[in-house]
Amino acid sequence: MRLSRFHLPLLKETPGDAQIASHRLMLRGGMIRQQAAGIYAWLPLGHRILKKIEQIVREEQNRAGAVEMLMPTIQPATLWHESGRYDAYGPEMLRITDRHDREMLYGPTNEEMITAIIRSGIKSYKALPQMLYHIQWKFRDEVRPRFGVMRGREFLMKDTYSFDVDAAGARKSYLKMFAAYLRTFGRMGLKAIPMRADTGPIGGDLSHEFIVLAETGESEVFVHKDLMDMSLPPADLDFDGDLEPLFEQWTSKYAATDEMHTPEEFEAIPEGERMNARGIEVGHIFYFGTKYSEPMNAYVEGPDGKSFIEMGSYGVGVSRLMGALIEAYHDEEGCKWPMAVAPFHVGLVNIKAGDADCDAASERLYAALEAQGVEVLYDETGDRAGEKFARMDLIGLPYILTIGPRGLKDGQVEVKSRATGEKENIPLDSVADVIAARVKDALAIS
Amino acid sequence: MRLSRFHLPLLKETPGDAQIASHRLMLRGGMIRQQAAGIYAWLPLGHRILKKIEQIVREEQNRAGAVEMLMPTIQPATLWHESGRYDAYGPEMLRITDRHDREMLYGPTNEEMITAIIRSGIKSYKALPQMLYHIQWKFRDEVRPRFGVMRGREFLMKDTYSFDVDAAGARKSYLKMFAAYLRTFGRMGLKAIPMRADTGPIGGDLSHEFIVLAETGESEVFVHKDLMDMSLPPADLDFDGDLEPLFEQWTSKYAATDEMHTPEEFEAIPEGERMNARGIEVGHIFYFGTKYSEPMNAYVEGPDGKSFIEMGSYGVGVSRLMGALIEAYHDEEGCKWPMAVAPFHVGLVNIKAGDADCDAASERLYAALEAQGVEVLYDETGDRAGEKFARMDLIGLPYILTIGPRGLKDGQVEVKSRATGEKENIPLDSVADVIAARVKDALAIS
Repeated sequence: MRLSRFHLPLLKETPGDAQIASHRLMLRGGMIRQQAAGIYAWLPLGHRILKKIEQIVREEQNRAGAVEMLMPTIQPATLWHESGRYDAYGPEMLRITDRHDREMLYGPTNEEMITAIIRSGIKSYKALPQMLYHIQWKFRDEVRPRFGVMRGREFLMKDTYSFDVDAAGARKSYLKMFAAYLRTFGRMGLKAIPMRADTGPIGGDLSHEFIVLAETGESEVFVHKDLMDMSLPPADLDFDGDLEPLFEQWTSKYAATDEMHTPEEFEAIPEGERMNARGIEVGHIFYFGTKYSEPMNAYVEGPDGKSFIEMGSYGVGVSRLMGALIEAYHDEEGCKWPMAVAPFHVGLVNIKAGDADCDAASERLYAALEAQGVEVLYDETGDRAGEKFARMDLIGLPYILTIGPRGLKDGQVEVKSRATGEKENIPLDSVADVIAARVKDALAIS
Repeated sequence: MRLSRFHLPLLKETPGDAQIASHRLMLRGGMIRQQAAGIYAWLPLGHRILKKIEQIVREEQNRAGAVEMLMPTIQPATLWHESGRYDAYGPEMLRITDRHDREMLYGPTNEEMITAIIRSGIKSYKALPQMLYHIQWKFRDEVRPRFGVMRGREFLMKDTYSFDVDAAGARKSYLKMFAAYLRTFGRMGLKAIPMRADTGPIGGDLSHEFIVLAETGESEVFVHKDLMDMSLPPADLDFDGDLEPLFEQWTSKYAATDEMHTPEEFEAIPEGERMNARGIEVGHIFYFGTKYSEPMNAYVEGPDGKSFIEMGSYGVGVSRLMGALIEAYHDEEGCKWPMAVAPFHVGLVNIKAGDADCDAASERLYAALEAQGVEVLYDETGDRAGEKFARMDLIGLPYILTIGPRGLKDGQVEVKSRATGEKENIPLDSVADVIAARVKDALAIS
């Protein structure tokens, strides 16, 4: 992508209401623009990151056996009257009246709708288990939206729903999502720790929040240090196999948010193995049995008569993850995107645009990288060199390749790693191959 | 994909209010489920088709140099007060009041928002031209939604906006989209003819509707037959080159909807070269100059002072296209998807599930096809053979491969083309290679 064709409007000054780094950097770096409180447009750079996050979420859902579909954003209120949540939900629900005076709403979640879909589509227990998910915009009319996309009103969420004949089956579905989430966040370069969460009135131990550790996190967390070094499930994990040992491994060590914290238990851990930090919730998985299927009459006919479908739901905050990623990966100068979610793999800076040799070398390198599948943002503008470097640091592409008259004389390209700040010179003839190989290696992880 | 894991709830009976084939087949074939009048959930099968359509639209936008972004569904009314359209829009606009009593709306289109984004992001004429697009859900509160996704209320649309310094530049942008649209619809297997459309008060000749011919089309169209055989722009079209000859070629022959029809002009064409048919609008492109930039004060500083940005907008009805495709490709038994938009390339039917030989051969073939990148819906259920074949015909995958005890004895797989109905036997050992090659050939077109 040529920068001159790309819409990348940077802000010189940080808007006053941006309190945390991710909000500041997303605004300054031309990733998002606020349209109303808690409602953002995703500018081209931000959109590319959002799509990468979404695609990783999708791939790991598919790997775990969930099937993608898409439910609409607008729902009829009648569904929510069936479950009893229409009145219970409160002012966070954006209620809408259509031109025929029908009560509608902008979906904050989809338990009711998916239950109705399954109710009409499945009759026999033989059609179960099933796992369905969608990645769709939701709306929660937060009284005080803040922290940019971290607590917005219109937000992108992946929500999966599982349907099983009995509780044992539902547990298996739950464990599949548990494993999928570990891989999902891990692939983005995030250390997300599953923590036991409140299951509400139905009880049991099957609700976990996945929390990314970050200084600006909204909640205090208490974790056993061993969880920091635990390895992720492999790409070839057999999701139909026994996932209990994996679940046991990740849940036997202490990990809780302040809401679920039991100090006695935590303090029984040797002091050197304890960690007290702050965290950002990026996922939440939940087994809720027949909470919706019973009032909504979603059942299957089995050999022993009819039984209500056992359900669970599993959410990932896709747009929120972009904020969490910046909180985890940035410095004073800007973002430092992990390769897997970087909007482009490489920034190519021609510091003397208009100089025939620099232009020719830059164009050749641009073409050579793209031919190898490397995504390049090519700065061919006439801006000053200092401005170009500051811009690349701000938007945080993993590698910045610089072509200038001095290096070119020696046939060298300067390559900077944004993560480490290290610079090296690589011969112009081989730099495309070297960088393409590094990008491929980085993307191959997990 | 194994059918047992896929959620494919077929309807035995066609809902009474489904008047046209696409609506009937989408409901019967488990592609969509109505959630409220004109609001649909996209079940897994329908979702896969929608994603394929969306991806073709995206690829052709990118090829033409447009850059993707994403605007939110909910917009503040203030933007629409600026343009004066808030009051003008009428009851089709879904108006919403949030918890703080602010006037919001569910965007039916995005001219205002994109103008505001460009206004704040671009200062100099040097930053132009730009073309930005997004693929986002829109809402129009139709008084009488009907024909399924063809005239729904919540619908998926691709809308592009072009920004130029002057009218000559705007014409170039317009021609890029004109060419991109020809390729977009052509790649899906649709014959979409650009027809002159009403430009409204600003006049000029730069507005075209792209109309797919179909018996159930909403409007009557009048076209010169030569347009039916015109070849599409090639994949390597130079979008920065001179597109005037291409535009001239496609617009010099008569083509008009009834609204824009001039009988004298049409009747001057020799009778054998005239065509009178019905059509479905799938795209609309529009040059509107400074209609929004002037009231919203979106300008650039140029060498001769400031000038309002010249704009155009370019829409494709992504969800509507799914209906148009079915109208163009179906028979009494069901859909007949062109390869480029088929939800799966191949249906694999094991007619004797449970038979060890049939199971083993089916599993091997399933794996061999998927290994070659062929998307397979594998029916490994215990349903009756007749039911399986009827289901495959209904959902309309391009090839249906059948494995049964009789064919297997001779080492043969029956291969049926859904488009032609032709059947042939292909040796089990080579069928994966043969079919993979055919799928690749079909996808390589244009």
